[in-house]
Amino acid sequence: MNSRKDIFKSRLNTLIEKKNSLLCVGLDSDIQRIPKALMNESDPLLVFNREIIQATQDLAVAFKINIAFYESLGTSGWELLEKTLRMIPGDVLTIADAKRADIGNTSRKYAETFFQTYQFDAITVTPYMGFDSISPFLDFEDKGVFILCLTSNEGSKDFQYLLVDGEPLYVQVARRAVEWNLTYGNCGLVVGATHPEDMEFLRNVATGLPFLIPGIGAQGGDLATAVRFGTDAEGKSALISASRSIIYASEGANFAAAARDAARTLKEEINRFR
Amino acid sequence: MNSRKDIFKSRLNTLIEKKNSLLCVGLDSDIQRIPKALMNESDPLLVFNREIIQATQDLAVAFKINIAFYESLGTSGWELLEKTLRMIPGDVLTIADAKRADIGNTSRKYAETFFQTYQFDAITVTPYMGFDSISPFLDFEDKGVFILCLTSNEGSKDFQYLLVDGEPLYVQVARRAVEWNLTYGNCGLVVGATHPEDMEFLRNVATGLPFLIPGIGAQGGDLATAVRFGTDAEGKSALISASRSIIYASEGANFAAAARDAARTLKEEINRFR
Repeated sequence: MNSRKDIFKSRLNTLIEKKNSLLCVGLDSDIQRIPKALMNESDPLLVFNREIIQATQDLAVAFKINIAFYESLGTSGWELLEKTLRMIPGDVLTIADAKRADIGNTSRKYAETFFQTYQFDAITVTPYMGFDSISPFLDFEDKGVFILCLTSNEGSKDFQYLLVDGEPLYVQVARRAVEWNLTYGNCGLVVGATHPEDMEFLRNVATGLPFLIPGIGAQGGDLATAVRFGTDAEGKSALISASRSIIYASEGANFAAAARDAARTLKEEINRFR
Repeated sequence: MNSRKDIFKSRLNTLIEKKNSLLCVGLDSDIQRIPKALMNESDPLLVFNREIIQATQDLAVAFKINIAFYESLGTSGWELLEKTLRMIPGDVLTIADAKRADIGNTSRKYAETFFQTYQFDAITVTPYMGFDSISPFLDFEDKGVFILCLTSNEGSKDFQYLLVDGEPLYVQVARRAVEWNLTYGNCGLVVGATHPEDMEFLRNVATGLPFLIPGIGAQGGDLATAVRFGTDAEGKSALISASRSIIYASEGANFAAAARDAARTLKEEINRFR
């Protein structure tokens, strides 16, 4: 029994077991990409999100909301975010994919925004500014904090692979996250599925931390490796996230049914590798 | 003559010359810290920002808006941001202190948010995800992009000082920014005034890049070094940013006059070291 609470991780793994799923659906909702059929609606993005949520909520363990897509709409985007969050049932975790972090008093404001104002269950944060830029998020003991470690994009090679004492920077980030987790119990890592060769090593470094794994689907990451090495010894503590390949599975009026099919297919493919 | 346009840097240095100032005032406006006298107003933070802007706009070359403080207010915070931006005259640059960056299509959304929706002149971004997370911002050729290099907080020691090929990571970041600037012409660096011993070296690495220098004032950075080594050979290309020490100079009804005094004093102190 840990003295730490591990509240978020427990919730995550309970849901993974209950739903027999590692699926995280990313709501990267973009007015330029949603079906034309929705353009007659007074709030097309809200209808889109509602349909996608209803079609996938029993399959998904989490919805990852890409804050950029809402923020870019100005004030109305934040209203959309509020309304979208209200439509998500309690048995699906909500992750603010925000990649924030700043000096302490500023990070505290960001933490309040996402954990109190919007009541997300978890957030993604960026590590460059170090511990005191992340600890204000960790202070919310029932919330999950996924620290960018090895990202899924091409630019991950620019700094994350630089060698520090013979190990890539991203491994240093993972080691520090493991250390912080000893105290806080709510750290996780973002590990892109586009680096299958490094996933196994990272899982060994960060045995007990939940991994949020983007890069499947539109970004072309390797699913088998992501599932095999991204999960813990019990096949849990991991979320495989897909956004565009699910929510834009069809451009037609059948988009919600198509999203459900894509989500179910991915969920089943994931389970085949567990 | 450069083939690049250097539009932002030219604007910055023209304003520095015209106003004989390197001062950047940070609008970290916080409902818990503004004078009680404003609490009878229907929108206390808006009145606060208006008074601070009017009291310091002739002294400041830029206003740095700490997005966290607005975002934490929910929808009303973004309305406050819009209204605040409209009050800033054209001869003061606006910097979104947002510290964003994400995979390419997401960073593009963030760039649109701050450069198009809100029409900021510049932004701060975080480098961990590498070039393709920053290039969508650089694509806006008339906007300035300040990349976090050596930050002013304690946590800067956690990763930024890790040695890569015998040099700290933050120097690698500076070198890459210099390289990117050859193509784009609109890169700058965030360099905290709390590391005076490293400022000179960084200025030699990034001779031509504008520096945004926080850490003066509440954070206790060394002003003389920041000005001497933070500026370029002509005493320009640098913004010395102070937030709390100016905008909260008085808790009384005289807060705007006190902010003006603090801003003028700091502006003059800076000029004494130029």
